[in-house]
Amino acid sequence: MIFTAKEIAHNLNGSIVGNEGAQVNSLAKIEDGKPGSISFLANPKYTKFVYSSESSIIIVGQDFIPEKPVKATLIKVENPYASFAKLLDYYNKIKLDKKGISARAHISPSATIGNDVYIGEFAFIGENSTIGDGCKIYPQTYIGDNVTLGNNTTLFPGVKVYSDNSIGSECVFHSGVVIGGDGFGFVPVTDDNYNKIAQIGNVIIEDYVEIGANTSVDRATLGSTIIRKGAKLDNLIQIGHNVEIGENTIIVAQTGISGSTKIGKNCVIAGQVGITGHLIIGDNAKIAAQSGVSTNVKEGAVVFGSPAFEASKYRKAYVHFRNFQKIVDRIDKLEDFMSGKDKA
Amino acid sequence: MIFTAKEIAHNLNGSIVGNEGAQVNSLAKIEDGKPGSISFLANPKYTKFVYSSESSIIIVGQDFIPEKPVKATLIKVENPYASFAKLLDYYNKIKLDKKGISARAHISPSATIGNDVYIGEFAFIGENSTIGDGCKIYPQTYIGDNVTLGNNTTLFPGVKVYSDNSIGSECVFHSGVVIGGDGFGFVPVTDDNYNKIAQIGNVIIEDYVEIGANTSVDRATLGSTIIRKGAKLDNLIQIGHNVEIGENTIIVAQTGISGSTKIGKNCVIAGQVGITGHLIIGDNAKIAAQSGVSTNVKEGAVVFGSPAFEASKYRKAYVHFRNFQKIVDRIDKLEDFMSGKDKA
Amino acid sequence: MIFTAKEIAHNLNGSIVGNEGAQVNSLAKIEDGKPGSISFLANPKYTKFVYSSESSIIIVGQDFIPEKPVKATLIKVENPYASFAKLLDYYNKIKLDKKGISARAHISPSATIGNDVYIGEFAFIGENSTIGDGCKIYPQTYIGDNVTLGNNTTLFPGVKVYSDNSIGSECVFHSGVVIGGDGFGFVPVTDDNYNKIAQIGNVIIEDYVEIGANTSVDRATLGSTIIRKGAKLDNLIQIGHNVEIGENTIIVAQTGISGSTKIGKNCVIAGQVGITGHLIIGDNAKIAAQSGVSTNVKEGAVVFGSPAFEASKYRKAYVHFRNFQKIVDRIDKLEDFMSGKDKA
Repeated sequence: MIFTAKEIAHNLNGSIVGNEGAQVNSLAKIEDGKPGSISFLANPKYTKFVYSSESSIIIVGQDFIPEKPVKATLIKVENPYASFAKLLDYYNKIKLDKKGISARAHISPSATIGNDVYIGEFAFIGENSTIGDGCKIYPQTYIGDNVTLGNNTTLFPGVKVYSDNSIGSECVFHSGVVIGGDGFGFVPVTDDNYNKIAQIGNVIIEDYVEIGANTSVDRATLGSTIIRKGAKLDNLIQIGHNVEIGENTIIVAQTGISGSTKIGKNCVIAGQVGITGHLIIGDNAKIAAQSGVSTNVKEGAVVFGSPAFEASKYRKAYVHFRNFQKIVDRIDKLEDFMSGKDKA
Repeated sequence: MIFTAKEIAHNLNGSIVGNEGAQVNSLAKIEDGKPGSISFLANPKYTKFVYSSESSIIIVGQDFIPEKPVKATLIKVENPYASFAKLLDYYNKIKLDKKGISARAHISPSATIGNDVYIGEFAFIGENSTIGDGCKIYPQTYIGDNVTLGNNTTLFPGVKVYSDNSIGSECVFHSGVVIGGDGFGFVPVTDDNYNKIAQIGNVIIEDYVEIGANTSVDRATLGSTIIRKGAKLDNLIQIGHNVEIGENTIIVAQTGISGSTKIGKNCVIAGQVGITGHLIIGDNAKIAAQSGVSTNVKEGAVVFGSPAFEASKYRKAYVHFRNFQKIVDRIDKLEDFMSGKDKA
Repeated sequence: MIFTAKEIAHNLNGSIVGNEGAQVNSLAKIEDGKPGSISFLANPKYTKFVYSSESSIIIVGQDFIPEKPVKATLIKVENPYASFAKLLDYYNKIKLDKKGISARAHISPSATIGNDVYIGEFAFIGENSTIGDGCKIYPQTYIGDNVTLGNNTTLFPGVKVYSDNSIGSECVFHSGVVIGGDGFGFVPVTDDNYNKIAQIGNVIIEDYVEIGANTSVDRATLGSTIIRKGAKLDNLIQIGHNVEIGENTIIVAQTGISGSTKIGKNCVIAGQVGITGHLIIGDNAKIAAQSGVSTNVKEGAVVFGSPAFEASKYRKAYVHFRNFQKIVDRIDKLEDFMSGKDKA
């Protein structure tokens, strides 16, 4: 894919300073730029690279006035960072624009497939499932029976969606994602022997949800495990049965959430956090990395530690922990003093 | 699937109060019930929902006497919770009752396949492998060479079983499970360069073992990694080479167990625990979530912390940690007192 | 596969004491040996087993002189452990010697396939990708477009390599590995709504890298996520976008490394460690298990804790933490003393 400065400026509603025929075929950081690449300048700290960059085109702010000669063609826009992100997105969409249904995929006769769908080799689509318009089902993906996918949802290679689950529009699931495996539910039969509780609920995932590689979302025992609109889950996360994740909540890699816990909207849960079951985490809560949450968290609270409590208090306590030897030394000294007094 | 109150009562050995022709096609919590669903009442706290529930059938205890009119048909049984679990299980078995061997699966001519087996599309079964009666091998599953599966074992889509491993009867492995990848064994050649130790042992998994999505169990260097009868492993767990997990031990999500550690029977290991290598964890031990175990744990012990020690002691120490600022304030005060005395 | 003592001695450059026609077909620990197996003696603690072992052949040191009669044939070598490892490796190579390209694989016409390559059933190889000589691509593996694989690299069943990534020679990736999923990058559009930043960079993996089951390595936003020569990654690890892992660095299971962090050479990062983004970890650093690293780590440093600091200091502080109750008791006593003095 080759683009000219003219096409890009038009696309970004920008103005050109330099050669409008300049051509690029790749995107690069301004400090790594090579002939044929396009870069951007948003952070003033990087301004010096405008003059040395080998990039053929650089996107700059409306008000950028070069103080030295610039080799690159400049495109002036209102917000260089946002414009570059738009360009990335445009480039990515072209790159990922797979189309067509492979004869080597298995599609149940009772499945309903929308328009402009990509279904890759060795993909499996079960009975009575519905795939919305513009979906991309990459090779080796599994979609069980009675599954619904909205429009323009992408399942990368090897995603597994068990039967009876519902997935919204504009979602992206990465390789190795497992949706709807059994929740971890066992009842003791005797002291040392367990019976499995059949897990017959499902998973409902709303629109604009992104789920990272090898993350697993368990189906509900009864009812539904729910991930609300716009939530973003990173890689290798565990979501237990009957959990609910609120709108636009962000969860970083390797976090685990146990059964029946309800997470509010707009929360930020850092990496490797563990949250026990049957809790309520309020809207806008923030949980620091590696925390172990074992009690409810209030709206807007920030917690840290294992078990977790108020983050600012944790950080202070941890400063003392780091200095524990000095604190004990102080106690030793006090005891010396005391025993001296006693002797005295 | 539609069931009548009469069929269900017969199945559960219960008695009907109301319309024996009442029909249901789904299972629901009593508070979420809709016409056509069946629910149960086990916890007295939920008794009020019997009168308001829209469920068509409700399973209640033998001795339940309504105090107000009830819309639903009641089925009286000895243990409503156990009866409902039985019903879930029955429903689930019908739902998961896949049969037949896909022409699009790859089955080595030297493999032995039992009766009533399901082998889905794009599944792979290697040389000299044996699949027992009633097994369900979902699409895109991989079974290497010389693997043995007992009877009625289910491998959900995308499970990967490397060569030379042995799996028992009545096991369930969820999507993304990897059995028999190489253990993590490298010997330094020089200070900064490693040679891999070939991992030529295998994995033995006994009967009634359940393993959750994306969990990996490494093969032994020599000998076997062993998971004993009835053990239950949740999602995203790491089991190192030459580990042994005892009978009916439960391991919650994202826990990791390093090479050659031996876990006893009936242990409960909570989520995100790490256990270092070459340890012995006694029978009935309990390990709290996020603990880091670096020493042997005695039979029946309960440990917590990283590094882990006696849980009750950890919890007390952690209370002091939370109040660390106050404790330091007390020392400050003592020092003020001391220096005052000195001045005095 | 059956080997004779003569063949093995030749292979290992060793000398035989006993029957040079002794035959073996398996490898076993000296204490578990059976007729037909070969074992080794490296650790003097195990010397007693030489006399009782049922193994048909035992590899011993050059200077080993039996003090009692030995049933097994002995092969004397300079380094018994290294010789046994060599034997394991040899055995393993024969076992894993798959060849041929399945008609049931999908190989894009524009892909370039080297000599002596194995490509298993239901594998997918995308457009313009290059597979080097001697590579083994197991069944159900996915290789996207424009991917390069060096020579003799093995991808076990179900590995997924997204488009545009580059993988070296002599690498081994286990089942469930995902290379090149999107980095976790979102910009807030409003306070509670995110736009995804397209992730158009790639992943570069150099030679001799081993990656364990279900580990995920995200592609860079721009530029490359890089794993240098000889690095070894265990199972279920998360490598964020634009991370760089230095040569011969070892990372144990379930560790997570956030975006843009740079890890030096020859580091040892234990299990379940979390490292935040944009940090620099110096060469030869060691990070203890379950640590949470939130600041740069100097060359050769050893850190522990969450947040992590100097490991020896952490261990001392943790001893005090374990004894926190006693420390508080001491303060109580001091206060009693003080108040007594006050009264006095």
